[in-house]
Amino acid sequence: MNKIKVAVLGATGMIGQRFVQLLEDHPYFELSGLYASERSEGKMLREALKIRDHEFTEESLDMRISAMDVKEIARTSRIAFSGLPSDIAGGIESELAAAGTAVFSNAANHRMRNDVPLLIPECNPDHLDMVRSQSTFADGGFIVTNANCSTTGIAPPLKVLDDAFGLQFAVVSTYQAISGAGYPGVPSLDILGNVVPYIKNEEEKMEAELAKILGSIDGDRFAPSPVQVLVNCARVPVVDGHLESLVLRTAKDASVDDVMAAMENFRSAPQELRLPSAPVRPIIVRREADRPQPALDAFAGEPARARGMSVVAGRVRKKDNYIKMFVLSHNTLRGGAGGSVLNAELAVSRRLL
Amino acid sequence: MNKIKVAVLGATGMIGQRFVQLLEDHPYFELSGLYASERSEGKMLREALKIRDHEFTEESLDMRISAMDVKEIARTSRIAFSGLPSDIAGGIESELAAAGTAVFSNAANHRMRNDVPLLIPECNPDHLDMVRSQSTFADGGFIVTNANCSTTGIAPPLKVLDDAFGLQFAVVSTYQAISGAGYPGVPSLDILGNVVPYIKNEEEKMEAELAKILGSIDGDRFAPSPVQVLVNCARVPVVDGHLESLVLRTAKDASVDDVMAAMENFRSAPQELRLPSAPVRPIIVRREADRPQPALDAFAGEPARARGMSVVAGRVRKKDNYIKMFVLSHNTLRGGAGGSVLNAELAVSRRLL
Amino acid sequence: MNKIKVAVLGATGMIGQRFVQLLEDHPYFELSGLYASERSEGKMLREALKIRDHEFTEESLDMRISAMDVKEIARTSRIAFSGLPSDIAGGIESELAAAGTAVFSNAANHRMRNDVPLLIPECNPDHLDMVRSQSTFADGGFIVTNANCSTTGIAPPLKVLDDAFGLQFAVVSTYQAISGAGYPGVPSLDILGNVVPYIKNEEEKMEAELAKILGSIDGDRFAPSPVQVLVNCARVPVVDGHLESLVLRTAKDASVDDVMAAMENFRSAPQELRLPSAPVRPIIVRREADRPQPALDAFAGEPARARGMSVVAGRVRKKDNYIKMFVLSHNTLRGGAGGSVLNAELAVSRRLL
Amino acid sequence: MNKIKVAVLGATGMIGQRFVQLLEDHPYFELSGLYASERSEGKMLREALKIRDHEFTEESLDMRISAMDVKEIARTSRIAFSGLPSDIAGGIESELAAAGTAVFSNAANHRMRNDVPLLIPECNPDHLDMVRSQSTFADGGFIVTNANCSTTGIAPPLKVLDDAFGLQFAVVSTYQAISGAGYPGVPSLDILGNVVPYIKNEEEKMEAELAKILGSIDGDRFAPSPVQVLVNCARVPVVDGHLESLVLRTAKDASVDDVMAAMENFRSAPQELRLPSAPVRPIIVRREADRPQPALDAFAGEPARARGMSVVAGRVRKKDNYIKMFVLSHNTLRGGAGGSVLNAELAVSRRLL
Repeated sequence: MNKIKVAVLGATGMIGQRFVQLLEDHPYFELSGLYASERSEGKMLREALKIRDHEFTEESLDMRISAMDVKEIARTSRIAFSGLPSDIAGGIESELAAAGTAVFSNAANHRMRNDVPLLIPECNPDHLDMVRSQSTFADGGFIVTNANCSTTGIAPPLKVLDDAFGLQFAVVSTYQAISGAGYPGVPSLDILGNVVPYIKNEEEKMEAELAKILGSIDGDRFAPSPVQVLVNCARVPVVDGHLESLVLRTAKDASVDDVMAAMENFRSAPQELRLPSAPVRPIIVRREADRPQPALDAFAGEPARARGMSVVAGRVRKKDNYIKMFVLSHNTLRGGAGGSVLNAELAVSRRLL
Repeated sequence: MNKIKVAVLGATGMIGQRFVQLLEDHPYFELSGLYASERSEGKMLREALKIRDHEFTEESLDMRISAMDVKEIARTSRIAFSGLPSDIAGGIESELAAAGTAVFSNAANHRMRNDVPLLIPECNPDHLDMVRSQSTFADGGFIVTNANCSTTGIAPPLKVLDDAFGLQFAVVSTYQAISGAGYPGVPSLDILGNVVPYIKNEEEKMEAELAKILGSIDGDRFAPSPVQVLVNCARVPVVDGHLESLVLRTAKDASVDDVMAAMENFRSAPQELRLPSAPVRPIIVRREADRPQPALDAFAGEPARARGMSVVAGRVRKKDNYIKMFVLSHNTLRGGAGGSVLNAELAVSRRLL
Repeated sequence: MNKIKVAVLGATGMIGQRFVQLLEDHPYFELSGLYASERSEGKMLREALKIRDHEFTEESLDMRISAMDVKEIARTSRIAFSGLPSDIAGGIESELAAAGTAVFSNAANHRMRNDVPLLIPECNPDHLDMVRSQSTFADGGFIVTNANCSTTGIAPPLKVLDDAFGLQFAVVSTYQAISGAGYPGVPSLDILGNVVPYIKNEEEKMEAELAKILGSIDGDRFAPSPVQVLVNCARVPVVDGHLESLVLRTAKDASVDDVMAAMENFRSAPQELRLPSAPVRPIIVRREADRPQPALDAFAGEPARARGMSVVAGRVRKKDNYIKMFVLSHNTLRGGAGGSVLNAELAVSRRLL
Repeated sequence: MNKIKVAVLGATGMIGQRFVQLLEDHPYFELSGLYASERSEGKMLREALKIRDHEFTEESLDMRISAMDVKEIARTSRIAFSGLPSDIAGGIESELAAAGTAVFSNAANHRMRNDVPLLIPECNPDHLDMVRSQSTFADGGFIVTNANCSTTGIAPPLKVLDDAFGLQFAVVSTYQAISGAGYPGVPSLDILGNVVPYIKNEEEKMEAELAKILGSIDGDRFAPSPVQVLVNCARVPVVDGHLESLVLRTAKDASVDDVMAAMENFRSAPQELRLPSAPVRPIIVRREADRPQPALDAFAGEPARARGMSVVAGRVRKKDNYIKMFVLSHNTLRGGAGGSVLNAELAVSRRLL
């Protein structure tokens, strides 16, 4: 098939550059432009590199960054992948949708809107249909958001356990990587040899987003899940990979083996549809005493295109009637650009594009 | 008064050397000997230094380490402060008590015995009396233990909230410093830029110890507290200071202000008795958005002798009927040698010595 | 005596706050005002804290920061300690000198001027006299600069060895702490688990500054030292303390013992004058196999007011005709605010104030 | 061709496991056995994993480790790759050579022997012939060593510049990664947020080894190079990649461009012979202001099998008559197992096997 032309917004940032990485040689998509603020206009990608672990192609490195121009983007690209900062993302994304562009955004601005899917294809693929109620949809424009990076890591396990055993209650404590704050992001003087138990608005986002993702659609409205989620967030001196401590209670009794089996056997729409960025195993369960670890598990995921797209769970234990575990996910792949690309692949597969 | 002669066991380790630090120029105690395994026999303290942040006196640095000899220790010291590893602590501590020595131990071996106080003087000072039921007590020998470093940090806040509002349930996730594993302890290859969500036996210890500390004495037995505690432990690349995420539910409704006031106003036996190592404020409550932090708060505590002996709480919030907060404590001072020294000061004050 | 009123410029930065720390309860100086850019006007110091390891007095924490106003500063303060960034330091410092204020600056702007002393009181105390040739001196205004933080650490050993054995050649490689870049300074994504072998202009500064400091005064001009210095600079993930590798050749043959003795016995003007911030030992020589280390030696210096003011040398060895060693110094104390305060103390002692 | 059977000695260590990684699907070699101390006998590789960044094949993970048995190894393997610690490597390697096995060793024990090549195939491929003078050679047994990890990184640039311009003098300061000390290796308490300016015997090794590698063969003896090398070594908190600061003087004048061109155009025996592990470019020269960096450049090298096998040079500058630069190499690949595998490939190509 002819590849769909896509633009990357925020191409000088961490998430933007993860988009570029994931779009190199993508089977559905073809990169048609890189956009960022005027300050970076005319620079080549190679002059603004932020990512340590990927070797970009020469073609990517030579691409020039343009200043954001909604008309130009809408004219040349069917899709805009947005890694824009939240202070400007809201307006530009709305304008693009109005101009007929499909926007797959990593920004928080539109996440809680009633007509915008907050999409994790393994968890709530049917929420994607809500784009049809967006006023711009008739003209081809719409907005799909992915969740906050910390939300994304725990949503698949919570979804699985909710479906299997009826999730009632979850306490989450996070150990979040510095790449989650972008670049320059966290000053080294704040985090070297330290932990900072505060990330602005993060706990509120996670609590609200999980209720929407685990919720259902009632007519034309989202009905939030009644599951009670309590979150404490902290930043740790780790480059990539958000680790999260989970303590859960389910309505139905479940053994440790039941819980591990449910997570391990979980397959959902992206796997059934064989979407290019879908990991074969959405949740990998480790049985070693000391896993998952950011340094060892952040990039889990097969095939190669799904590197960093699996969630890794481990240390599943039971105490009284509670399940305890740790979960790890890559915050700028699964929890960032990779999530948005998977969202767009689902939209292609569902013929919204 | 004449100072009481004290020995330090395990003087080549982190905890042992914290004991030496705290006993320099102590108003009640006088260091009479340093003991460790035969491997270190004859070495001066200066040849085996493990602690970064204290400048030892020349007198301390020149002290020679002896091999452990129970009779010799019992003959020359009234008290033994034990920083021994658990594989040898159990037997030697029992022998010392049998030989008439008062043992204040940082090791886990005797903590859960019914006749051994698991003592945090601010939380359960009256548990100290249980030493009277030890068979060796008549001859002056007994064992008092302090709690695990991670238990110690959260016990004071939990005790305060239990007394004030009836604690029902607590979920704890830890961010533990590398000094908690002693020296050489955690290999740098395991922890640099990483988090390890596993510390052997730590969660079980914390859950059991908190039940004992928050429990009561029923005749000659400890009656464990019924409070439900669920713990997930992790190691982070921080030198000193265990941070802990807490999510709690209390029987009586309490506002954020109620909770902060209860913790801030908490004073207990060590403060009333003006014990030398007692911090003026056992719990310091920070109101900044991003505290406590290991790099900023690990050494909190006044006066100078109580440096590192305050617990620091912060980010107290309420969601639904749950209280959320973070708590920090110095793991080798408050949660290690400092705790044991404070225990011994209480014993002196209660005329057990 | 009546204390001299002093202002701190750049009070929201790392160096500015080190000035405040060192001026608390100073025997010569009394803090009369904190100044920074308009952005911080009206904030209390406590709202802009950058330093981890000092507990400021309540009085300091409550001081309000004013916007820079040269006339106001000149009217209320005899001395201005400048921790301003170099893009604005040059002009403001010149204006202050013109207004009759004595400026002790940490900024690079005026360092290489022929009439401005680049002063390290142990190395070149007589250079201070050059202020007399500044056009503003008659009215009481003048500028004295301290050296770059990396220059400052190695200048005392190089000076000692030059005087004793005739220094010909020095190769320096630096391991510089992140606090040297101020706050927010180095992004954590750049330095966590990494080394960055580049600090803008640093090598050029060090090579030029050492020639001036080790040089002599020839009439009314500085005659730079002919010693050949070659520098490679790198940033490492350390909070405080610049470590530097030195390989030297001297004209006169010197044994390792000669070199260590010369450095250890070095005393200079600040020690003879018993200046308050002068360390008893300007250079401490360690004989252990593995010192100096930032974590252990950055804060070396006695008495208490001179904490972080000693340079620590170690691993002195000889190979062929070259001397090899490592040197460590605290980059924001000895190499920053502490150096400037010591400069001002020398000026007081020499009756320039 | 039939693949050559090879054993890995020290299979529980970092270097041993790098050997396993590099031998998976190798075109010349086939893994026939893993060996380590008796303590690990019977364990599967997966139970003793030390390496973070490689996903081993299931076949490798399931291989069982045997206790070292010289006869058994000699019987089943033509080559032994040795990652043994130096306290046992010397004897076992000699016994293996006597038993007719070709030993390619990473250990220091035999490096300075007159009949043992200290081989870096790009630098001194002809030294390999010296194995013919080993007494065991007639029966097929011989020993080839690779150099210390820090030596290996700088040897190629020094060799190039020596050949092109006559190297006279080099001062080296190292920034060495923790993986160089093996596992458990460096305790985290020693290195987190710190630099340790001492690595036992490392400076002596580097100075001696460089003289041998850059030297020539005079009849049946090595004639060491007269180039003067002075080294200061330090450990930094970096996982992989030794960075080294170089200051050099050459006999012939060379511009920065000359130096960069000479290094960039360097090709040697492994490239000409197209050995499987040979990097296309032995020395990559970066022109950015701030490269090479361990986090960005440690794994440089193409094709895929040569990942981590290129040396990366950068910041080439000239001051007076000296050349300054930084050089980076992967210490357990190029400077460890990868170097030994390349040595063995050269031996195959030269028909010594």
